Amino acid sequence: MRKTRLDLARIQAARQAIDPLFLDSPLYPCTGLGEDLGCSVSLKLETVNPVRSFKARGTEIIASRLAASGRKAVVCASAGNLGQALAWSGRNRGLDVTVVASRSAPAVKLERIRALGAELVLVDGDYDVACERAAAIARERGVRRVEDSVDVETCDGAATIGLELAADTSRFDTVLVALGTGALAGGVGFAVKSLATQVEVVCVQPQGAPAMTRSWHARRVITTESTDTIADGVAGRVPNPDALADLLVVADDAVLVEESSIVEGMRLLLDHAGLVVEPSAALGIAALLEDRDRFAGRRVATVVCGSNVDMDAYHRWVGTRPAPVPAAAGGPERAG
Amino acid sequence: MRKTRLDLARIQAARQAIDPLFLDSPLYPCTGLGEDLGCSVSLKLETVNPVRSFKARGTEIIASRLAASGRKAVVCASAGNLGQALAWSGRNRGLDVTVVASRSAPAVKLERIRALGAELVLVDGDYDVACERAAAIARERGVRRVEDSVDVETCDGAATIGLELAADTSRFDTVLVALGTGALAGGVGFAVKSLATQVEVVCVQPQGAPAMTRSWHARRVITTESTDTIADGVAGRVPNPDALADLLVVADDAVLVEESSIVEGMRLLLDHAGLVVEPSAALGIAALLEDRDRFAGRRVATVVCGSNVDMDAYHRWVGTRPAPVPAAAGGPERAG
Repeated sequence: MRKTRLDLARIQAARQAIDPLFLDSPLYPCTGLGEDLGCSVSLKLETVNPVRSFKARGTEIIASRLAASGRKAVVCASAGNLGQALAWSGRNRGLDVTVVASRSAPAVKLERIRALGAELVLVDGDYDVACERAAAIARERGVRRVEDSVDVETCDGAATIGLELAADTSRFDTVLVALGTGALAGGVGFAVKSLATQVEVVCVQPQGAPAMTRSWHARRVITTESTDTIADGVAGRVPNPDALADLLVVADDAVLVEESSIVEGMRLLLDHAGLVVEPSAALGIAALLEDRDRFAGRRVATVVCGSNVDMDAYHRWVGTRPAPVPAAAGGPERAG
Repeated sequence: MRKTRLDLARIQAARQAIDPLFLDSPLYPCTGLGEDLGCSVSLKLETVNPVRSFKARGTEIIASRLAASGRKAVVCASAGNLGQALAWSGRNRGLDVTVVASRSAPAVKLERIRALGAELVLVDGDYDVACERAAAIARERGVRRVEDSVDVETCDGAATIGLELAADTSRFDTVLVALGTGALAGGVGFAVKSLATQVEVVCVQPQGAPAMTRSWHARRVITTESTDTIADGVAGRVPNPDALADLLVVADDAVLVEESSIVEGMRLLLDHAGLVVEPSAALGIAALLEDRDRFAGRRVATVVCGSNVDMDAYHRWVGTRPAPVPAAAGGPERAG
């Protein structure tokens, strides 16, 4: 394998800095989902922790290093999950955390960032606008800025998921992973390809936010003017060249999926696994839905990477919605 | 602690017989839930495995022993989850599994039992009627009958959850556990009380199925004529005296909750944790809702014991429902 920014020994050592709450997440076959999709589907579940996404694996590494070196503050731009994770990791280590996010980010993500005690700075514009503002704040205040996929700790954190996947490949030969900035896909891909070379790594991104996928296929950075997807967690326009270079080494393929497939993936995870997930976490299932022939009979694992989603939007997308409450509502109906 | 049927060394050894898929389930604080309920709430999550309940911990022990002793078949009565777990564990060890269940058990549980290759025998009547039929089948065929809470392996399996809880008591001083036959509560309670004596063990049962709770308070078996609860997993009428005797040793309290609290608990787990759970798994949250004063400021852990629930019923109970599909439905709405 060609060289990337990542290093296996460093990733293995980084596990020590991460609260065990975020490590060794469940990996299990979801038989109902597999029967529905015509292949074996295992879920690597990154939503059953205090911040409901995988991002704390990286922020734990960063915050513990900052605290060890006596730093008092840190800032990041975030689509929502990185900010929440940094708020959690920073709070537990006495760091002042500032998160810059788009005003249009899911309210639930913004609320949780505030609830965890971080300063929240909202910008008009999208994730890439938030990144510019975070950079400015970091310069003004002279504090460390955490940048997803650019700061290698964010990739190392994601790569610890890959270590866990590679340690238990008895049930899968393909890993489907959401593609946004590339930290998750690049990190998971690196660890998997380092330790389980036979496993295929397929990145999945929405048609409505295709910058990194187009860049991967073109082997050079391609930016887009805008994004149009419900998968807010992966909606970037400006790929980072280092993250792309790493991804070119470790990914076997990168595919784009329709919004309707993402929604259907969310619905299948609800019905077959009892899991509410955010759109980005359903990208792997969406890819299975869109190319049943490719995956027929295969054994697939997908990283369910986050579940921070506004419930109103969720019900609207997935086709459930709060039922009207009757004026004279009694107790709940009982089973026969 | 007075003697029970359980033995710590035997339980610790039993872990070896259990597929790691079912062990070391997540235990994590759900901060949003805690903020809503005015106490710290950690979830011990037993739903993220192939059978979506804790029951496989026990059936793994049983099936591995049966297979080791050359047995070819096994039968059980089940409210749904034990049968599914035994079907999983038996199939993986070449055992013919027969499950007797009530015709009124949730369809999703019956379907999964069939999908896992077990023979399904349906009875008119409730769980206790299914138990009688399972006993008859066991006699006729000369095969081992697995009986929840009576067979000590079912308690030992549950007790492995208690081992895991006792190993990490940094975040809680009270454990809330669903009470049905007593296998779960008795097993968890035994391990917790053996290894973390300071932790309070509180059992929770529906008002509509109070037999074991009434028995615990009366210190003798009290049966009921019928049950009336949506919590099908804990709806028994005839407590087992041995299970009661064990429970009297290890439980600090047993409380009854209203159906409306169970439903509200399910809704809170959906909204704050992104988890669809079956009614029995929300009993702990229901107890917090019904006695906020008692638990105010406390640090509580609750075992989220299963998520096998008919989605139609779930939406009806929790107040969500499938939205009508417009005649000219387009793609999903996109985020601004």
